[in-house]
Amino acid sequence: MSVRLPPRTIEWIGGLDGHVSMIDQTRLPVELVMLQVRDVPTMRDAIKRLQVRGAPAIGIAAAFGVVLGVRGYEGDDAVAFLRLLAETSEVLASARPTAVNLTWALNRMQRCAVECLGSAGEHLGGAAPCDASRNESASADRCGGNRAATVRERAEQCGAAQVGAAPMSIAQVKAALLDEAKRIRDEDAAMCRAIGRAGEPLIKPGAGVLTHCNAGGLATAEFGTALAPLYTAHELGRGFRVFADETRPLLQGSRLTAWELREAGIDVTLLCDSMAAALMREGKIDLVITGADRIAANGDVANKIGTYGVAVLAQAHGIPFYVAAPSSTFDLSIPDGTHIPIEMREADEIRVGFGRPTAPPDVPCYSPAFDVTPAALVRAIITERGIIQPVGVSTIAKQLGAPHTERRP
Amino acid sequence: MSVRLPPRTIEWIGGLDGHVSMIDQTRLPVELVMLQVRDVPTMRDAIKRLQVRGAPAIGIAAAFGVVLGVRGYEGDDAVAFLRLLAETSEVLASARPTAVNLTWALNRMQRCAVECLGSAGEHLGGAAPCDASRNESASADRCGGNRAATVRERAEQCGAAQVGAAPMSIAQVKAALLDEAKRIRDEDAAMCRAIGRAGEPLIKPGAGVLTHCNAGGLATAEFGTALAPLYTAHELGRGFRVFADETRPLLQGSRLTAWELREAGIDVTLLCDSMAAALMREGKIDLVITGADRIAANGDVANKIGTYGVAVLAQAHGIPFYVAAPSSTFDLSIPDGTHIPIEMREADEIRVGFGRPTAPPDVPCYSPAFDVTPAALVRAIITERGIIQPVGVSTIAKQLGAPHTERRP
Repeated sequence: MSVRLPPRTIEWIGGLDGHVSMIDQTRLPVELVMLQVRDVPTMRDAIKRLQVRGAPAIGIAAAFGVVLGVRGYEGDDAVAFLRLLAETSEVLASARPTAVNLTWALNRMQRCAVECLGSAGEHLGGAAPCDASRNESASADRCGGNRAATVRERAEQCGAAQVGAAPMSIAQVKAALLDEAKRIRDEDAAMCRAIGRAGEPLIKPGAGVLTHCNAGGLATAEFGTALAPLYTAHELGRGFRVFADETRPLLQGSRLTAWELREAGIDVTLLCDSMAAALMREGKIDLVITGADRIAANGDVANKIGTYGVAVLAQAHGIPFYVAAPSSTFDLSIPDGTHIPIEMREADEIRVGFGRPTAPPDVPCYSPAFDVTPAALVRAIITERGIIQPVGVSTIAKQLGAPHTERRP
Repeated sequence: MSVRLPPRTIEWIGGLDGHVSMIDQTRLPVELVMLQVRDVPTMRDAIKRLQVRGAPAIGIAAAFGVVLGVRGYEGDDAVAFLRLLAETSEVLASARPTAVNLTWALNRMQRCAVECLGSAGEHLGGAAPCDASRNESASADRCGGNRAATVRERAEQCGAAQVGAAPMSIAQVKAALLDEAKRIRDEDAAMCRAIGRAGEPLIKPGAGVLTHCNAGGLATAEFGTALAPLYTAHELGRGFRVFADETRPLLQGSRLTAWELREAGIDVTLLCDSMAAALMREGKIDLVITGADRIAANGDVANKIGTYGVAVLAQAHGIPFYVAAPSSTFDLSIPDGTHIPIEMREADEIRVGFGRPTAPPDVPCYSPAFDVTPAALVRAIITERGIIQPVGVSTIAKQLGAPHTERRP
């Protein structure tokens, strides 16, 4: 049986003179349009207009954007090359100033160039164009978290035998930068695949699976986080059924999750958020899987608004509730969920969210972007390193192991 | 302190040469437009186009529509007059063939005319234009249930001293029909007010009240059912806060409930259905009140989809969940909720509900119109006769008392 996989959200086509091909997410769910991006202004615009969205996907787009910005440099002046790279990064970073993956990827690309260029780049290396801290962002769908390479390892990946070794030519650095951008994409894809392998055994043949929001392939390079175990089970030929909450107010479930699962040939049924309880009572749901935006040291999970309600309903119906997320999503500096700040959204996302007024224009709205599900309601957390169960301070600390000096956001 | 009340959904202005004034509900929540209706085609159109909606309000509109249809008759032939009335009723009934309150009100108007005309109308009296059974309708927001008058009582109300007494003139019958239509409206208003008085003590000063869908004044003559205790408490000068679920897919909460509470000057905050759980966890909700579409003999409640989920969440947070409904909503022929058929709605209400596609056009949807909340989750049921608590077969049977020979739908 031939198994369809989700379309690749973003990839580089061809060699250094090639281009970026990515799904224009603003055209979903009505039509699948691949956006061909060949220059920095187009990439900046695509990021700004949310044609590409989801934290990991934005990071990948920015890394490819750097390549698009510097590949045309024809001189042999390392300093001038790094200046062009820094300017390109500034342009890309300004597209979504608080997106933490964007700045993380740009910094990684800049470091790669500095290291490849050896001493010529050293004095420019500290001037990272962007310095958004991890905590400033409440971006969803984060998918990352491989242990970051050390400076030496990265220099080796970039082709320099060691820091301070004979510097590469500009042409070689350009090629190394394209490799680095592809590596960011591949690492993300590999991490999502690892989450998929860890979670796949939970999806029994014939299971009914409920999910909320979009922690899927569209937010990442390929498989996503919450949806990764589903794609993996699908790849193994297993039959099951997914129910996707539409996820008001921004409808990521109907616009994105329903679309990408359907594209992959997975049996998906859409429902309004308010219908999940009736579905559970009918016995159609065997498990729930959602993603996470941040997980505290005790396992409390911040995720898209509505997740907590689904978790309470799951418990009331004796249905296991799982969270799938990369280990980078854990924030061990936060003891529990009460310390996670909850962003409040604009009232008009509820009142006029679909282009026409559906509520009195001046009625106050309660519109948190996220809610916190207490660890006690979470049966297990699926990460790229395996399954954490039961969920608690000690099991989480054990799996995450020693603190990392640098973490992919 | 001057207390604002909800605008009157529908009323008759002036004498027999007057007209119907009603809120054009298709213009809500953007603007309040009063529709002035002076003839039958306009009234039929208004019912068909949902400018007036909600079972009791439709019944009142139809009764006024009969008056509009016969008041121009200038002859003195009782049979011809009753034929005109029957034709008018047919036109009005065709606007929404399955709306049970519509046919109920038309039949009541016809019986009134027949009784007023005495023997002249007898041979036409049996030809009721409509015969929709109660069970064919799944219409929401029903508000009725006063013990129906006997034939003799109604004849007296209509001005005929007794059945078979000297018949009235056509002019007198026209006036009697206008009185009967106003009586249908007033009975509905009185019943909602009685529900309000029964439930008002539950609304403590400063309380946070969550409601779902619109069981409000817009569906009835004035106060509605679930919202009646709120309007009554408001009228008494009590301060409290209402949180209204937007109620996907058709958004009755944002379009109607938020609008009418705000018009009445009640503190109302709108939220997406998925946000109710977070609000409960924050401790902002002290009680939940919803309406009901049908209540089984054991107290299981069918109501707008999403109600069951709210009831489960309320229980998980230790919050009392109340249902407010007229006694006519009880269907004692149904032992429990498993016997209540659940209508499935069109997928496009979820996929393109806001005027533009928000999901893949062909994705299957799960879209029940109603769900069933088991009696065990219902703290009490508020009816026009008082509060039923605890909710169970015996307490319900006791309050409803002897079976009625005729029930207002």
